[in-house]
Amino acid sequence: MSTFLNPKRTVAELKELRALTGDENGAQRVAFTPMWVKTRAWLREKLEAIPAEIHNDAAGNTWTTLRGESDRALLIGGHMDSVPNGGWLDGCLNVLAGVEILRRINSQYHGKPPVTVRLVDWADEEGARFGKSLFGSSACSGNLDMNEARGLVDKDGIKLPDALNNVGIDFERVKDSGQELKNAAAYLELHIEQGPVLLDLDLPLGAVLGTFGVERHALTFHGQAAHSGSTPMNRRKDAFLAAAKMSPEIYHIAERSHGGVCTIGSCTTKPGIVTSVAAECRITLDQRHLDTTALAKMLQEAHDASEQFAKEGNVKVSWERLWQIAPRPFNAELIALCDESIRETCGKSHRLPSGPLHDAAEVAAAGVPTVMMFVQSLHGISHNKIEDTKEEHLELCVTAFDKLAEKAMKWLKPK
Amino acid sequence: MSTFLNPKRTVAELKELRALTGDENGAQRVAFTPMWVKTRAWLREKLEAIPAEIHNDAAGNTWTTLRGESDRALLIGGHMDSVPNGGWLDGCLNVLAGVEILRRINSQYHGKPPVTVRLVDWADEEGARFGKSLFGSSACSGNLDMNEARGLVDKDGIKLPDALNNVGIDFERVKDSGQELKNAAAYLELHIEQGPVLLDLDLPLGAVLGTFGVERHALTFHGQAAHSGSTPMNRRKDAFLAAAKMSPEIYHIAERSHGGVCTIGSCTTKPGIVTSVAAECRITLDQRHLDTTALAKMLQEAHDASEQFAKEGNVKVSWERLWQIAPRPFNAELIALCDESIRETCGKSHRLPSGPLHDAAEVAAAGVPTVMMFVQSLHGISHNKIEDTKEEHLELCVTAFDKLAEKAMKWLKPK
Repeated sequence: MSTFLNPKRTVAELKELRALTGDENGAQRVAFTPMWVKTRAWLREKLEAIPAEIHNDAAGNTWTTLRGESDRALLIGGHMDSVPNGGWLDGCLNVLAGVEILRRINSQYHGKPPVTVRLVDWADEEGARFGKSLFGSSACSGNLDMNEARGLVDKDGIKLPDALNNVGIDFERVKDSGQELKNAAAYLELHIEQGPVLLDLDLPLGAVLGTFGVERHALTFHGQAAHSGSTPMNRRKDAFLAAAKMSPEIYHIAERSHGGVCTIGSCTTKPGIVTSVAAECRITLDQRHLDTTALAKMLQEAHDASEQFAKEGNVKVSWERLWQIAPRPFNAELIALCDESIRETCGKSHRLPSGPLHDAAEVAAAGVPTVMMFVQSLHGISHNKIEDTKEEHLELCVTAFDKLAEKAMKWLKPK
Repeated sequence: MSTFLNPKRTVAELKELRALTGDENGAQRVAFTPMWVKTRAWLREKLEAIPAEIHNDAAGNTWTTLRGESDRALLIGGHMDSVPNGGWLDGCLNVLAGVEILRRINSQYHGKPPVTVRLVDWADEEGARFGKSLFGSSACSGNLDMNEARGLVDKDGIKLPDALNNVGIDFERVKDSGQELKNAAAYLELHIEQGPVLLDLDLPLGAVLGTFGVERHALTFHGQAAHSGSTPMNRRKDAFLAAAKMSPEIYHIAERSHGGVCTIGSCTTKPGIVTSVAAECRITLDQRHLDTTALAKMLQEAHDASEQFAKEGNVKVSWERLWQIAPRPFNAELIALCDESIRETCGKSHRLPSGPLHDAAEVAAAGVPTVMMFVQSLHGISHNKIEDTKEEHLELCVTAFDKLAEKAMKWLKPK
């Protein structure tokens, strides 16, 4: 079968896309903009040449279907949209690898594979314009909060429903896209890692265990302003000191959690001057874990630690939830097939969770057995023009992802 | 002698001054403004009634002199200027207590005390308008940095030399005021504590050991930005975490230093967002001690700690000096006399360092034996309209300070 797959073509098409939709600052394929429309027209030409049935759903996701002997459908997904000044691979690697796999399947099975195979280009994965990611996939999964989305506004004051209307999408009907998942039996997504794990292990590819659940909070310690010269140490209510003492413990909690991570990314103090004890110290806390129970435990332990250190520091602490999302573990059998495909391609695989969210999380939440494959990111960096992956790794990932598609078809067929 | 001293009159004059120069937001006697000029005219009337010789020196400090049998001079100092929206006692309590003491000495010694006694109203102690405190006293001590002062500008763009010119002071000659210290043999200053120490001890008065030396720095930890979801804990270079881990140790250093204090008043992070490990964390560190060697040790240990925690956290740290001033320990014999005066007045004394700076630090730096007396501050607060001291304590401090003046005259006479 591999005689029909041409991973070098995928790399060439990625470069063609970069030339068409990028500039000196990176990729500019922001969803619902003219450049995104141009990107999709370019993609459609490739898809029509396969040939396959192509249509857009009510949320603007583009579905390309090879009808098989069974209606049970294997889905392959990605997204053509990018952040402003984005990388050349994030999202579109997935779609263009899928295009190559459709070509291979169409050719090998003479237009009639054993199960139906569908490629989906999700609309607005990044959420760069309206600040809300996974638009198309969450509309399709049914998880999109319509009231929240209805009120989203871009920096020019344009509302999401109006922006959608400009590209022919009726906002009030976007959840009709859910019918596309009716026969969905498995979902596969390839993506650059966007982190340093595979780079550190010197491995090209990894099987993804799921997307992290996230608990995001702001913690504010409330102490008392006092003159830095005239206030004895034992008389102080130092909001910064309490936050500082607590912070290593918060990190220990993540380290003890078997796979969780946490980050205190922001710290600010009030009045925030050199001559005053901090009356207030606000930190942001981002906690992530693949396991719901473990994540809840991390949060509870952080709560307890904050109360303990506040008490010891004679200050108060208050919590404000900024955001949360549940973990989305992937399908164990598909993870095993993903591992197998990687080992057959390059000898060694590695299992890792995904820190960033992906459309796959929405599909998994809709109950479709799901897995993702990661390919190494150079520098561990994405959402930036320096985002990159070695060409040999790009070719390997197309090969391994194609093997996974074939194994998944076989996994679906006997059922 | 105490039959001639009337501490209640001092309290009445403080209230008279508050009505004349304060508003609903507090005292408004900012140096070199019309209100300050009005304040000094009011003071001059009081001084002329003593009567005594009065003149302004080249820096705008007002000297009121009772010529004694000896030219050796006992100086009593304070400042009539306030911060904007200041308290009703800070600085002017010292001057008005001095006025009452001049009256008592003049009356008791029939205009010819054993040593010369001089009251000085320092010009611009607060530095509220030009951001540089101790103007008049540092000109007099010789420590004023002329190049720095020449360039000082207020918020309206007016230069210090021009503001001085408006009140009849020639900036280039301000250090000529140094000649006033020629026969100075002792300097006494009374002040509200501006801190909570005497309040906590439930004591009205304390003898001041000197003013703290200050080392003021900004420390910046340099790590690496990284995605909070995709970056494993062991791969991070977290600038905030290194700063947080170090901070309690910095405080321990002050606690171990026998009398030192330290404050981390400001903490900021970059990029400072919830989804990124902090690439940079900047804190301000203010360290104070009464002993030069101990202060230097605190600074060195803080340096060492920052390097150690930076190394452990796989980040770098850099230091920037913001400001420093040497400790100004006061005269041991005068401290003993101050203690004695307090004990005779209210039974119990307490020795404490001064966190805030005072004009006394400049006089001590010029080699004049110096001591200060503190009176309890309610709430431990100053530079605010709620600054206050119980009237009975105000009366006690005038009485005790007068006793100190008498003891200091005797201390000077036999020499």
